[in-house]
Amino acid sequence: MIDRYTPKIMKEIWSENSKYSRWLKVELSVMEAYEELRMIPDGTSIRAHQLASLDAKEMQKVEEAVGHDVIAFVKVATSKMGDMARFFHYGLTSSDVVDSALSMGIVEATKVILKKMDSVMNVVIQLAQRYRYTPTIGRTHGVHAEPTSFGLKVLNWYAELERAKKRLMVEKERISVGKISGAVGNYANIPPEVEKIACTKLGLKPCKISTQVIPRDIHADYVSTLAVISGGFERIATEIRHLQKTEVREVEEPFSEKQRGSSAMPHKKNPILCERLTGISRMIRGYSVSALEDIALWHERDVSHSSVERVIIPDSTTLIYYSLEILEYIMNGLKVHEDRMMKNIYLTRGLIFSQRILLKLVEDGMSRENAYLLVQRASMKVWNSEILDLPTEIKKEVPSFNVDGILDVKPYLKHVDEIFERFEVKV
Amino acid sequence: MIDRYTPKIMKEIWSENSKYSRWLKVELSVMEAYEELRMIPDGTSIRAHQLASLDAKEMQKVEEAVGHDVIAFVKVATSKMGDMARFFHYGLTSSDVVDSALSMGIVEATKVILKKMDSVMNVVIQLAQRYRYTPTIGRTHGVHAEPTSFGLKVLNWYAELERAKKRLMVEKERISVGKISGAVGNYANIPPEVEKIACTKLGLKPCKISTQVIPRDIHADYVSTLAVISGGFERIATEIRHLQKTEVREVEEPFSEKQRGSSAMPHKKNPILCERLTGISRMIRGYSVSALEDIALWHERDVSHSSVERVIIPDSTTLIYYSLEILEYIMNGLKVHEDRMMKNIYLTRGLIFSQRILLKLVEDGMSRENAYLLVQRASMKVWNSEILDLPTEIKKEVPSFNVDGILDVKPYLKHVDEIFERFEVKV
Amino acid sequence: MIDRYTPKIMKEIWSENSKYSRWLKVELSVMEAYEELRMIPDGTSIRAHQLASLDAKEMQKVEEAVGHDVIAFVKVATSKMGDMARFFHYGLTSSDVVDSALSMGIVEATKVILKKMDSVMNVVIQLAQRYRYTPTIGRTHGVHAEPTSFGLKVLNWYAELERAKKRLMVEKERISVGKISGAVGNYANIPPEVEKIACTKLGLKPCKISTQVIPRDIHADYVSTLAVISGGFERIATEIRHLQKTEVREVEEPFSEKQRGSSAMPHKKNPILCERLTGISRMIRGYSVSALEDIALWHERDVSHSSVERVIIPDSTTLIYYSLEILEYIMNGLKVHEDRMMKNIYLTRGLIFSQRILLKLVEDGMSRENAYLLVQRASMKVWNSEILDLPTEIKKEVPSFNVDGILDVKPYLKHVDEIFERFEVKV
Amino acid sequence: MIDRYTPKIMKEIWSENSKYSRWLKVELSVMEAYEELRMIPDGTSIRAHQLASLDAKEMQKVEEAVGHDVIAFVKVATSKMGDMARFFHYGLTSSDVVDSALSMGIVEATKVILKKMDSVMNVVIQLAQRYRYTPTIGRTHGVHAEPTSFGLKVLNWYAELERAKKRLMVEKERISVGKISGAVGNYANIPPEVEKIACTKLGLKPCKISTQVIPRDIHADYVSTLAVISGGFERIATEIRHLQKTEVREVEEPFSEKQRGSSAMPHKKNPILCERLTGISRMIRGYSVSALEDIALWHERDVSHSSVERVIIPDSTTLIYYSLEILEYIMNGLKVHEDRMMKNIYLTRGLIFSQRILLKLVEDGMSRENAYLLVQRASMKVWNSEILDLPTEIKKEVPSFNVDGILDVKPYLKHVDEIFERFEVKV
Repeated sequence: MIDRYTPKIMKEIWSENSKYSRWLKVELSVMEAYEELRMIPDGTSIRAHQLASLDAKEMQKVEEAVGHDVIAFVKVATSKMGDMARFFHYGLTSSDVVDSALSMGIVEATKVILKKMDSVMNVVIQLAQRYRYTPTIGRTHGVHAEPTSFGLKVLNWYAELERAKKRLMVEKERISVGKISGAVGNYANIPPEVEKIACTKLGLKPCKISTQVIPRDIHADYVSTLAVISGGFERIATEIRHLQKTEVREVEEPFSEKQRGSSAMPHKKNPILCERLTGISRMIRGYSVSALEDIALWHERDVSHSSVERVIIPDSTTLIYYSLEILEYIMNGLKVHEDRMMKNIYLTRGLIFSQRILLKLVEDGMSRENAYLLVQRASMKVWNSEILDLPTEIKKEVPSFNVDGILDVKPYLKHVDEIFERFEVKV
Repeated sequence: MIDRYTPKIMKEIWSENSKYSRWLKVELSVMEAYEELRMIPDGTSIRAHQLASLDAKEMQKVEEAVGHDVIAFVKVATSKMGDMARFFHYGLTSSDVVDSALSMGIVEATKVILKKMDSVMNVVIQLAQRYRYTPTIGRTHGVHAEPTSFGLKVLNWYAELERAKKRLMVEKERISVGKISGAVGNYANIPPEVEKIACTKLGLKPCKISTQVIPRDIHADYVSTLAVISGGFERIATEIRHLQKTEVREVEEPFSEKQRGSSAMPHKKNPILCERLTGISRMIRGYSVSALEDIALWHERDVSHSSVERVIIPDSTTLIYYSLEILEYIMNGLKVHEDRMMKNIYLTRGLIFSQRILLKLVEDGMSRENAYLLVQRASMKVWNSEILDLPTEIKKEVPSFNVDGILDVKPYLKHVDEIFERFEVKV
Repeated sequence: MIDRYTPKIMKEIWSENSKYSRWLKVELSVMEAYEELRMIPDGTSIRAHQLASLDAKEMQKVEEAVGHDVIAFVKVATSKMGDMARFFHYGLTSSDVVDSALSMGIVEATKVILKKMDSVMNVVIQLAQRYRYTPTIGRTHGVHAEPTSFGLKVLNWYAELERAKKRLMVEKERISVGKISGAVGNYANIPPEVEKIACTKLGLKPCKISTQVIPRDIHADYVSTLAVISGGFERIATEIRHLQKTEVREVEEPFSEKQRGSSAMPHKKNPILCERLTGISRMIRGYSVSALEDIALWHERDVSHSSVERVIIPDSTTLIYYSLEILEYIMNGLKVHEDRMMKNIYLTRGLIFSQRILLKLVEDGMSRENAYLLVQRASMKVWNSEILDLPTEIKKEVPSFNVDGILDVKPYLKHVDEIFERFEVKV
Repeated sequence: MIDRYTPKIMKEIWSENSKYSRWLKVELSVMEAYEELRMIPDGTSIRAHQLASLDAKEMQKVEEAVGHDVIAFVKVATSKMGDMARFFHYGLTSSDVVDSALSMGIVEATKVILKKMDSVMNVVIQLAQRYRYTPTIGRTHGVHAEPTSFGLKVLNWYAELERAKKRLMVEKERISVGKISGAVGNYANIPPEVEKIACTKLGLKPCKISTQVIPRDIHADYVSTLAVISGGFERIATEIRHLQKTEVREVEEPFSEKQRGSSAMPHKKNPILCERLTGISRMIRGYSVSALEDIALWHERDVSHSSVERVIIPDSTTLIYYSLEILEYIMNGLKVHEDRMMKNIYLTRGLIFSQRILLKLVEDGMSRENAYLLVQRASMKVWNSEILDLPTEIKKEVPSFNVDGILDVKPYLKHVDEIFERFEVKV
C-alpha cells in the first residue's frame, strides 16, 4: 500500500523484518517441539535462537540467486549456527513456515484492528447517546420519509460496527491456524505432535487437515469479511457525505483551521475523508475477488496465491485499519447541526406526516384505500407548491379532521430508549 | 434473467428456439460452402434446410440421454433428412456451431441495443438543448461549487452515451467472428475455405486463429465493456437520484397518475427507476468478473466458460437493453424544476461565487494567497450563519471591492454554445 | 436462473407464489401479535387468513398500475376480506413484509442446501475411507512432490465441505432476522412488541436495530460466504479435472452408457460436470461483488439493492444447491484407478523420494546444504533422461548410501489414521 | 505495489517526483497557452519554469497542513516565483492539473508497456516459427483430442498478445485526453482555447466535455482492458503450467543453474513464474472492479475515485509491465521437449484418431450414427486397457477397414502454413 494510506503500526506488522522474525519464531517453535519430544538435544533451540542471523539485505541477495525466499532465509539464518543448523528447518517444507507465519501476521493485524475498532465504537456510542433525542428526518430513496432521531441514525452505525467486530472476531478464530505437516500435508517427515506443540507455542491451532498449505478458503473468507466490513464503513461515510450536502447540511466532517477545500473555490468544505472511505471500500471489494480466486489451487497446492497474498493481505488489513483511523477522527470531530435537522423536518410543510394522517383517517373510520388516495392527492398538491401544507389540504377535504399535534415529532421518538437499551454499553 | 427485467425482444433473441435456429444457420452455411467448393452435391443444403426438424422438446429429451446439446441437436435436426444427414455437421466439431452462433446472437443483441441507444440519445440531446441555458448549481463533493447550466449536465449524459455507443460499435466488430476450424483449430477435417465462405454468409469474419473455440478474451472484453457502459447509466441515474432528493428537488423521474411510492406513506414519490438502474449496474459489474475469469481456459479449450456464458451473456445484454428502456422512459418524462434550480443557486448567499471574488481581488492587486485566505475566512462565517452573505462580508474587509454583477450567473454560461457545438447533432 | 441449472426444490422456494405466501405469513403473524397484545379483535388473523386471496396473476396486473409490488399484494390479498382489511398491513411499511419474508426464504433455501450438503459429505467421507490407504502421488505446482494417500486427498475435500457447512450454519443464524419496525426503523406506528412476537412466530429473531430495512451487510455476508463455499467446490472440481487428464487418468467423473463426449471425436470422455462446477463458481464470485455493493444504501434505505437481490439471491442459492447435486452425482459415481495412481508414483524413477534421500544423507552425516546440492544435481540428470533413476545416481556419488526401502511408499502413509481420527464421523 | 513486483521503469513513472513534474508541465502549458492568447505577458512561462521549485518533501509538509495536495504543490512551486506566481495556476481548478497529468502518466506507462509487448511478441513469434511443424497433442477438457502443432499453440499465444496490443493502442487513444475546463467543466474562468492549446502541447486531446474531471468511464475502460489483457497472459501461463506437469512434461519454464524449487524436495522444478502470472491476473481483475465502481461519481465529481486511482492505476500498469518482463524471460528460455510431445501423441494407442476413423467409416458407407457408436464402443475398451489400440479394435469389427496411415499426424498439420500466413510478421 502506498505510504499515504499506511499507518505506522501496519507498516511495521507487514515489514520484511517482521516477516522474517515470524518465520524465525516458527522455526524455533518447531525446534522446541522436537526438544520436548526428545528428538533433538536439549537447548538446541535456545542456542539456535542466539546464533540466528536475520540480515534482510543478505536474504534478498541470496533469494535472487536461488529464486526461493524460504531457502534464502534458512541459508542466512543458519549461516552462523554451525552444528545447530542441522536441526533448523528439519523435516519442514517452506510452507510450514510461511503459512503458519502468515496466520500469525494476520492474527496480529486483526488484533490491532479490533483494538482500534473498540476505540471507534466507543466514540460512536457516545455520539449516539449525545443525540439520542435529536429529531431528524428519516429518508428513504433520498426522499423525506418520517422523523427519527439522529441518535438512532448513529446507533445504526454503532450496530454496523458491532456486527463488523463480531465477524472479525470469528475470522480471527478461523485464521488462527498453523500447519507443520510437510510437503503434501501427510507428516511424512515430521510427526503430528510437533505441529501440535509448535502451533500452541505460536498461539495457533493446528489446521485440522492441510495439503502443502492451509486451505485458501480460510484466507478468502477473511478477506471477504474485510470487504463486508469496509462496505459498512462506506455506508457510514455515504450517510455523512449526504448529510453534508449543501442543501442538507446537517452534519460536517471535521475541517481543520488551516485546511483548504479547493484550489479554485475558497468557500469549499468537502467531505473528503468520507469520500476516501468510499474509495477504500471499492479497493477492498476488489481484493476480495482476488482472494476468492485463490481457493481453487491445484492438487496439493500451487503457488499462484502467493503473489496475490503478498499484496492484498497487507493492503486490505492496512486499509481497514486506516479507515478506522479516519472514522475515529471524523466521529471525534463531527459537527452536528441540530437546528438544520429541525428545519429540514418541516421543509415539506407537513408532507412527512402523511402516514400518521392516513392512520388517523382510518381510525376515524375511512377505509385505508380511500384514505390513501385522499392523502396522496393532497400530498401531490403540496409537493408542487412552495406554500401549501398537508394538514390544511386534508382539512379542506375532511373538515372534521383534527390537526392538533399532528405535526409533533415526539411520537416518532417514543421507542428510542427501548432501542438504545438493546445495546448494553457502559458509557 | 427474471421476466420482470426481460424485454420481449431480448427474450426472443436468447430463447432456446432462436439458439437452435442460429445453430441451423451455421450448419447450413457450412453445407453451402461445401457446395460452392464442390465437395458435396449441389442442392444438398437447400434440401437439408427443407427437411431439418427443430423440435426443441425433442432435442432436450435426447440431450438428457446423451449429455451433449449439439449432438442432440444434430440427431433431431437430421432425423428426417435421410441421406442428406451424411453431409450435415460434416467435419465439424460442436464448437464450430455453438461458438459461431453465439457470436451471431451477441451481434444480434448488440444491434438491438445500439438501436435503442440511438433512441435514448435522441431524447437526451433534445433534453440538453431544451435546458441549454437553464442555470443550475454545479456540485463537487456534494457541495455547491459554481453555477453551470442544466443543459450542460444533460449534455454530459449525452456524451457518456456517445462514448458508450462508440465502444459498443467497436465491440460489435470485435465479436463478429466465427470459427469453423475443427476440434483443435487446425482445420484437420475441414478446409479453411469453408470457414471463410460460411462465416461470410453468416455476417461474421473468420477468427484469425482459434483453438476448439474462439478465444475468450473477446467475450470478456465484450462483457467488460457492458460493465463500463452500465457504469455510465449508473452515473446518470445517480445524478437524478441526487437531484430528486427532497432538499434539492430539481428534477423528478416520471411518476404516473396511479403510481404509489410507499404502502405506508402516501406522500412518497421515489426515484425507483434510477435506483433500479443503479442495482442493475452492480449486477453487470459482477458478470464482468465472471467473464474475465473465463479467459484462461485449459489447452485447446475446456468447457468451464459455457455455463457462465449461458447465463451472463443473455443476462448482461438483456439488462443493458432493459436499462435503456428505463432511461428512455425517464428522459421522456423527466420533470425539470427550473425555479428550484435558481433557488438552490442562491441558497448559500453568494458563497458559490467565491472563485470569481477571489480572482477579482487578485486582479485588483491582492496576492492570490492573501485573497484566498480572506475569501475563505469570510466564507466560513457565511457557512455558519443563516443570514450573512459573502459579497457583504468581503466588502467589510475590502471596502473598495466592487460587488456589481458579482452574483450574476450569466458569465458561467458564456461557453455553453461552444461546448454544444462539439456534438454535431441534427435535432 | 435458467431452467437448465435450477433444481425443482429451489424453483419452488423462489417462485412468485412462494414469495406471496411468505408475505402473507408475515402479515398474519403481525396480526396475531396485535391480537396477543389485544390491539385488534380476537380471531382477526384467522378470518383474514381464510379470506386472503393470493392470485399471482391479479397481483401482477395491479402492480403494473401502481408500480409497487407490496401495495399490489395488499390490495389483492385483502380484496375479499371486507372489514378485516383494516387490520391487514396495519402500521406496516412494505419492507417490514418484504425483508422479513426474504430472510425466511433465505433460511428455507439454506436449510435445503445444508441437508444436501450432509448427503454429499456422507458420500465423500465414505469415498475417503474406501481409499484411505491407496497410495497416490501428491503434487505441488503441478509437479510430483511426495506420495500421499488418495483417501487423504478426499478427506481434504471432506474438510472443505465441513468448513463450508460450519460457515453456512453461522450464516443461517446471522440471516435469521426479521424487522417490523416501520418506515424508518423507529417503531413510530407499531410497537416493538409486535416485532418480537411476529418474528418469533416466523422463526426469526428481531433485527437488533434497523432502518426501513435490515442492514445489507448481513445479506452481503451471506452471498460472500456462498462465494467462499463455491470456491471450495471449484477446488474439488479442479482436482478431479486434473486427475482425469489423459496423461494422469487416475480418476474419472461418471460417464453414462449413452453419453457422448464430442460430436466429432467418439473417444472423448470429458469431465464436463467438474468444468461446470468451475463455471458456476465464477458466477457466484460475480454475485458476491454485487452483494457487497448493496451495503452502502442511502440514509434509511434506498431500493437499489432490490433489483440485485431479486436476481442474485435466488441465483446464488440455486447454483449452490445445483452444485451440490452435481457433486453428489460425481462422488457417487467417481471411477478411481488405483493402478494408475501407483504407476504415476513411479513415473519419475525415484525422483519423488528426493527429500527422504536428502534426510537420510543428512542423518548419515552430510551437511544439509551439501546433501541438497548433491540430490538436486542427481535429480536434474534423472529429469533429463528417460532411463536413469535417482537412487542409482545417488549411489554413484555416495557408494555407501543404502537404498533399501528407499522407494517404499508406506512410510508416507504412517499418519493417515491419525488424520482420519480428527474427523469424528460415524460411517 | 510492493518492490518485489515493481520494475524500475514503472517505479520511476509513478514516483511522487514524476507526478509533480507532470503537474508542473500542465501548469506551464496553460501558461504558454495564455501567452499565445496574449492574456499574460510574454516570457512568463519560461521564467516561471526557471523559478519553479519542486521540493517533494516540502510539498508533503505543506499538504499535511492544508489537507490538499495541489494547493500544497502550487504553494511550494511558486514559493520562489515572486510576481510570476500570480499567473501560475491562474483560472485553474486542481483537477485540471491532476486529471490531465494523470492521463499523461497513463499514456507514458502505456507506451512503455506497448514497447515491452513488442519485444515479447517478437520472441513469441519466433518460438512459434521454430516449432511450426512440431506435432503435439491438442487437448480439450484436459483430455487428448487431436494432434496439432506446437507452433500453432504458440501462434495462439501470439494472437492473444496481438489482440492485447490492439486493444491497448485503442485505450491509449481513449485515455489521451486532458481537461482544462475549470471547477465544473464550463470554462467559467478560463477560455476553451487555453484547454485546446495546452492539451496539444501535452500530447493530449481536450476532453470533448468534462465536469470537474474527465469522466471516469474512460479510466474504468482502461483498467478493464488491462484485466482482459492480463487474462490473456494467464491463459498462456496456464498452458505452460499444464505442459510442465510431471505426467506431461512437454515444456518447462526456465530454471536457472542455482535455482531451488523446494526447501524440502531437491528434485523440484516448478513453474513458479507462470503461477505468479496467474496470481497477478487475479489482482488486476480485482482492480477492474474498483475502477468500474468509480464511474458513477456524484454530480460534477466527488473525490472517491482518487484514493482508488492513487493505488490501482500504478499497481495495474506496473503489474502488466512486470508480467511482460516475466513472459519475455519465460519465452526466451522456454525448454521444449519435442520427443515428449510425440510420445504423448501415441500415449493412448490410437484413440485420438477416432474422428478420422469415424469419417473414414462414413466415407466407406456407414451411417454417421452407426460409425459413431462403433468407434465410441471400441474407444471405451481401449481407454480401459493398457494394451489395446483403437485401429486394431476397429478392424476386429470391420475387417475391411484400412488402417494404413490412419495414425499419421501429418494430415493434421496440412493447414499450418496457411494459418501462419495470416500473421504478416517479418521475422
